[in-house]
Amino acid sequence: MSKLFAGLSAFPPTPVDADGVVDTAAVGTLVDRLAAAGVDSIGLLGSTGIYAYLDRIQRRRAVAAAMEAANGRVPMMVGVGALRTGWAVDLARDAEQAGAVGLLLPPMSYTVLTDREVVAHYHAVAGSTVLPLCIYNNPGTTNFRFSDALIGELSATPGVAAIKMPLPVGDDFAGELGRLRETTPETFSIGYSGDWGAAPSLLAGGDAWYSVVAGLLPEPALRLTRAAQDGDADGAAAIDAAFAPLWSLFKVHGSLRLMYVIADRLSLPIGDPPLPIMRVGADVVAAVEAALDHLQV
Amino acid sequence: MSKLFAGLSAFPPTPVDADGVVDTAAVGTLVDRLAAAGVDSIGLLGSTGIYAYLDRIQRRRAVAAAMEAANGRVPMMVGVGALRTGWAVDLARDAEQAGAVGLLLPPMSYTVLTDREVVAHYHAVAGSTVLPLCIYNNPGTTNFRFSDALIGELSATPGVAAIKMPLPVGDDFAGELGRLRETTPETFSIGYSGDWGAAPSLLAGGDAWYSVVAGLLPEPALRLTRAAQDGDADGAAAIDAAFAPLWSLFKVHGSLRLMYVIADRLSLPIGDPPLPIMRVGADVVAAVEAALDHLQV
Repeated sequence: MSKLFAGLSAFPPTPVDADGVVDTAAVGTLVDRLAAAGVDSIGLLGSTGIYAYLDRIQRRRAVAAAMEAANGRVPMMVGVGALRTGWAVDLARDAEQAGAVGLLLPPMSYTVLTDREVVAHYHAVAGSTVLPLCIYNNPGTTNFRFSDALIGELSATPGVAAIKMPLPVGDDFAGELGRLRETTPETFSIGYSGDWGAAPSLLAGGDAWYSVVAGLLPEPALRLTRAAQDGDADGAAAIDAAFAPLWSLFKVHGSLRLMYVIADRLSLPIGDPPLPIMRVGADVVAAVEAALDHLQV
Repeated sequence: MSKLFAGLSAFPPTPVDADGVVDTAAVGTLVDRLAAAGVDSIGLLGSTGIYAYLDRIQRRRAVAAAMEAANGRVPMMVGVGALRTGWAVDLARDAEQAGAVGLLLPPMSYTVLTDREVVAHYHAVAGSTVLPLCIYNNPGTTNFRFSDALIGELSATPGVAAIKMPLPVGDDFAGELGRLRETTPETFSIGYSGDWGAAPSLLAGGDAWYSVVAGLLPEPALRLTRAAQDGDADGAAAIDAAFAPLWSLFKVHGSLRLMYVIADRLSLPIGDPPLPIMRVGADVVAAVEAALDHLQV
């Protein structure tokens, strides 16, 4: 299994101005921090990277700035989600040409898609690039729900190498991983997003943590990852406990909105979220500050 | 209440080629048919008009072609849904400049939006145009659910003149209309989409039927509308019964996909749906053909 879909994958926000123009210098600053911290990979233009709110030209600018800042120090995965299959294919080619080493493909939906349509979408994008592709499974945003059977089917597609899963019902990581391992190739990587599930998912044998918080706070996220990878359940639990107040706020307000508060705390210039998404109010900012104090960052 | 948000509003598909380029001649053909049939308004670039799959330039081309074909015979509402507030504002200005007389605004979402964010989105778009605006409430596609309280709040916004509702739980049109009438201005129009709810919603006092099927089959949809508007429950029920086999298929396969089958039957050149959305298989085509036979079109 490539390191690309293993360990800690950090998802940085994408700094833009009010018109949606990417601040390439700020992208470079964020990527440089992540490379210096030693994350296992970067997931550019994920949901946290506001891919859905950026047009093709701005996405290209973001990828070019990130590649330049990373300068080969860390593998770069690029999200290529789009409502039209043709648009996703164009974005995949752009990312490949820019030097990305992997792609993230969400089944972004408006009209609710059928399984048959999603299979054809993944085949078309996987067939348009030499890069390995990670299925981006996040029903809350994409409005599409993968069945275990569909994941099994897609995992047999050449080029489809990994899946980023949402947290399972009842936090039954072992059960879900067991089921999915049965119907996917041995080399197929299964990782999780939803930062509050990082410790249990890695301890249960998840291959990767696709992390929002690591996009801005890579060090504690790396400590948690390494403890869990070493099977140090107590160590992982202790770091997870330090994160707990932040996780509680992520669940209520959405992790994306709170990244803008964390960036302010770190004096990182990531601009404002793309309207209609708004910054949280002063009361929530104060709660996030307290959670960051608890985390000692 | 303007006729714009009253009676039968027909939502035509938008014919495009495989690259998403709008076939303006075919748009004209569809709009001309609807104007000739005498529908009360046209809802261009709704979900059926695949707005989510068209970029700004193609939407402009579609609106221009529709305005030219309508030639003042029928009021034109234009959907201006977009993930970014700034994009929706641009589309609203484009539509106003092209001669549309009303706008349809869905709370199109990727990141799940808060009520506060949706209010700001509607304020921004309503404030950018002189045109009256219809709230496009369709949680199945937009991934946003309006509460009664939020509808009440938005209905007080200058420029927000109407709402297109999804079918209510338990088909309780009278109950829902009663609740909404209490918290919205007297002039605020409340209509329904979901073609199988047309007869009961109009008979219960709904102001408008926002109709997918009328986009290609305006005549029987108009007969149903006029019967219901006249309070002729038996007449409306008889036409509704003729549609019933088609409604059953709409519910299972999504009305959008079946519009391509209906267009083939009528020899109307609407192209293919935008991938990843696919045409239905031969078995479903045969079932739609039978449903159209039942409808005698």
